[in-house]
Amino acid sequence: KKSRQTVNTDHDEVLLIEANLDDQSGESLGFAMDQLIDAGAFDVFFTPIYMKKNRPACKLSVLCAPEERDTFVNLLLKHTSTIGVRYQVMQRSIMQRQFKKVETKFGTIRVKVARRDGVVKQTAEYDDCACAARTHGVSLAAVEQEVRRQLSDSLNQN
Amino acid sequence: KKSRQTVNTDHDEVLLIEANLDDQSGESLGFAMDQLIDAGAFDVFFTPIYMKKNRPACKLSVLCAPEERDTFVNLLLKHTSTIGVRYQVMQRSIMQRQFKKVETKFGTIRVKVARRDGVVKQTAEYDDCACAARTHGVSLAAVEQEVRRQLSDSLNQN
Amino acid sequence: KKSRQTVNTDHDEVLLIEANLDDQSGESLGFAMDQLIDAGAFDVFFTPIYMKKNRPACKLSVLCAPEERDTFVNLLLKHTSTIGVRYQVMQRSIMQRQFKKVETKFGTIRVKVARRDGVVKQTAEYDDCACAARTHGVSLAAVEQEVRRQLSDSLNQN
Amino acid sequence: KKSRQTVNTDHDEVLLIEANLDDQSGESLGFAMDQLIDAGAFDVFFTPIYMKKNRPACKLSVLCAPEERDTFVNLLLKHTSTIGVRYQVMQRSIMQRQFKKVETKFGTIRVKVARRDGVVKQTAEYDDCACAARTHGVSLAAVEQEVRRQLSDSLNQN
Amino acid sequence: KKSRQTVNTDHDEVLLIEANLDDQSGESLGFAMDQLIDAGAFDVFFTPIYMKKNRPACKLSVLCAPEERDTFVNLLLKHTSTIGVRYQVMQRSIMQRQFKKVETKFGTIRVKVARRDGVVKQTAEYDDCACAARTHGVSLAAVEQEVRRQLSDSLNQN
Amino acid sequence: KKSRQTVNTDHDEVLLIEANLDDQSGESLGFAMDQLIDAGAFDVFFTPIYMKKNRPACKLSVLCAPEERDTFVNLLLKHTSTIGVRYQVMQRSIMQRQFKKVETKFGTIRVKVARRDGVVKQTAEYDDCACAARTHGVSLAAVEQEVRRQLSDSLNQN
Ligand code: NI
Ligand code: NI
Ligand code: NI
Ligand code: NI
Ligand code: NI
Ligand code: NI
Ligand code: NI
Ligand code: NI
Ligand code: NI
Ligand code: NI
Ligand code: NI
Ligand code: NI
Repeated sequence: KKSRQTVNTDHDEVLLIEANLDDQSGESLGFAMDQLIDAGAFDVFFTPIYMKKNRPACKLSVLCAPEERDTFVNLLLKHTSTIGVRYQVMQRSIMQRQFKKVETKFGTIRVKVARRDGVVKQTAEYDDCACAARTHGVSLAAVEQEVRRQLSDSLNQN
Repeated sequence: KKSRQTVNTDHDEVLLIEANLDDQSGESLGFAMDQLIDAGAFDVFFTPIYMKKNRPACKLSVLCAPEERDTFVNLLLKHTSTIGVRYQVMQRSIMQRQFKKVETKFGTIRVKVARRDGVVKQTAEYDDCACAARTHGVSLAAVEQEVRRQLSDSLNQN
Repeated sequence: KKSRQTVNTDHDEVLLIEANLDDQSGESLGFAMDQLIDAGAFDVFFTPIYMKKNRPACKLSVLCAPEERDTFVNLLLKHTSTIGVRYQVMQRSIMQRQFKKVETKFGTIRVKVARRDGVVKQTAEYDDCACAARTHGVSLAAVEQEVRRQLSDSLNQN
Repeated sequence: KKSRQTVNTDHDEVLLIEANLDDQSGESLGFAMDQLIDAGAFDVFFTPIYMKKNRPACKLSVLCAPEERDTFVNLLLKHTSTIGVRYQVMQRSIMQRQFKKVETKFGTIRVKVARRDGVVKQTAEYDDCACAARTHGVSLAAVEQEVRRQLSDSLNQN
Repeated sequence: KKSRQTVNTDHDEVLLIEANLDDQSGESLGFAMDQLIDAGAFDVFFTPIYMKKNRPACKLSVLCAPEERDTFVNLLLKHTSTIGVRYQVMQRSIMQRQFKKVETKFGTIRVKVARRDGVVKQTAEYDDCACAARTHGVSLAAVEQEVRRQLSDSLNQN
Repeated sequence: KKSRQTVNTDHDEVLLIEANLDDQSGESLGFAMDQLIDAGAFDVFFTPIYMKKNRPACKLSVLCAPEERDTFVNLLLKHTSTIGVRYQVMQRSIMQRQFKKVETKFGTIRVKVARRDGVVKQTAEYDDCACAARTHGVSLAAVEQEVRRQLSDSLNQN
């Protein structure tokens, strides 16, 4: 999965594809999002918009690798009612990323460590935390707090 | 039209009917709004909501007279995909309303005068202003500004 | 699952529980929605709101059976950051529901048949359609169209 | 009307013009949308945004032909309160389009047929369906279903 | 300030007042929010809505003590363009609250401790954290993390 | 302050920086907006979006001078939870601006005068109007109306 890979660069490009959808149900838009995520989009998101003729509608946005344009344009045309999509390339500034594992009383949790110009961010992986929370019958916040405590302790011992 | 009638009370009740819609297009929701407005609803509005399974959806709200509940419940069931609507009665505090006419260089414009406890609001009727703006090729703001100027002048002359 | 049961009444009551959330991430709100759905809420939805101090926030709404109030109030307090929830009972007008099965070239699909005062709505079950679409590599719309075609044919033969 | 013309290309460019509006009422934004649609914009839509100082505001977006930039920039400056608009050119991938007519029990309905790489989409024209629904006192869904049935029948006869 | 007082009950009532606003700018709605907060409302929030005639609009909601209805109804009529507001009483389930102070390297930070049925939530006061972050030139997250570390340490020492 | 400076050009460029935020609270996003505004951004705004896994999230957008890209990219990485931001340069058409002062019964109010191709817009400065409204205990609308009246009178006297 792309979001779990090491990243060693601090700059790249990303393609933003968009379509306005006023003749498709929310139900089938949820299905379309799943297909786009499964196909490896970096990100897929909906924005509520208001269109002519009093239509509450939805803008679908996909962020993907520029070289995968055809794949995602075709998926959009297949899974949505639109007959046209627009797109553009955007620049990105990104933090470098590595992964480590933290042992907690709720099990092992992966932590993403992002760095850039002295800024360091440590983020527990959502899927691991959610799984641990479900298994142990606690809230997601309880798991995340435990991970932060372990990270803070290991910091103090060095 | 209800919004153009004189109102002499400062308190009444209103029925709020709502439905969450995730399996209907924005296009047909716009059509439903038109039907509900034509049937005499006080107000009809959409709120963007997010439902389970990643569905960008829409809450449809109707404000109507409590005694017209059956009419609007049936219209909602006819013109939307929902199989159930929820409703409740709410209290309302309202300003008393009268109407007057103002002559401007863009033609006659109706003005709603609302009063309550010393607060006075004068509002030019949108439909008149929009019609005048279209006819004279000016912006809506230009017409509204002209109406306010006339109202202010007539105030100064008294 | 509640949404797949036969319903023979045309009126009932529902409890609406709400909380405004400005100090919890979207990530953990998604987790909370899953917990609430799993616990048998009729519906769970988010509404984007804007709060004081420039905070883009989220209103969480839960619709459940009035007699399950304690269960859902406790789940909200457990899985969200709120320290208070508000609620009210609303009336509902609902369509009576039955289920039938339709054979299509994409497999068997359940169809919900809702009736009230002469209005009849037939809706293919989302989960069945989504599963069939994934299995056969087609769009959700293709499956739904096939179901409608079968329903229309069976109508013509009677 | 542009949306009803045959289109024989699968790629073009579109200009996206945007403005953030925090000092104009929704009423006058609705008027502005009408003016922009009447002037031939491909699409006009509003996005709810939240700006500084606790302001619930609105982003107005216009999609138009790149060569009509001056026309639409001027209309935006005339009909909105903004003192600056931003814009960019985007690429578009579009489906080729043709139109045909379908006879139904609700009258003649135009259908847009869009094609690209084997994907075919048939969409009944909203204005025709809405007009037929109003005239015959039925829901929009009833008309659309009838159109789909005719399309499906004509498919079966070939 | 109400949000900083000790609360010893687990149930109360709250009044929800609402108005739909389509003829007022976001700028002046931000001003209205400030006035309502200053007057002691429990909460004030905006919801983006879509009204007839293509109007992107705003629902203003105020939560206040039921006995302060007149105060807030009058403030709404004074500071907004509406000529009517609707309201209803809702029930609330709330957590009991106490306050304590935590010493950190960024100064003293108040912490709200909320309890109900075994659930305990500790939340650093936003205003204290924001002030400390500004003074020390760090992010809000850095201050909040430091508070959590102190709370966790004091837990370990008992 | 940039928004109060005379502007003599009718065209420039602006940088749009964006990030999708699903793991940060609204509370801390409000803090981030303050920091970005204080650092001289032209505009900062939030858009409600809906991301995968049922997450109600927020897009943060910053408009700034293209030559200040590093400053704002770094501020975004410091004050938000994102590990990457995307950006692009957009063109702008702007109205030329000057400032004048108007004496009213509520004190002196600055007025921005914007011009382009015969279109003239006069806008009372929000901060001055808000301050006057607070000091004199009137609504913002009352101050703005007084400013417009003075502007209209001075127009008539010439
Ligand atoms: Ni359409
Ligand atoms: Ni375990
Ligand atoms: Ni459904
Ligand atoms: Ni005339
Ligand atoms: Ni808070
Ligand atoms: Ni099969
Ligand atoms: Ni302004
Ligand atoms: Ni006919
Ligand atoms: Ni109005
Ligand atoms: Ni200090
Ligand atoms: Ni995440
Ligand atoms: Ni004064």
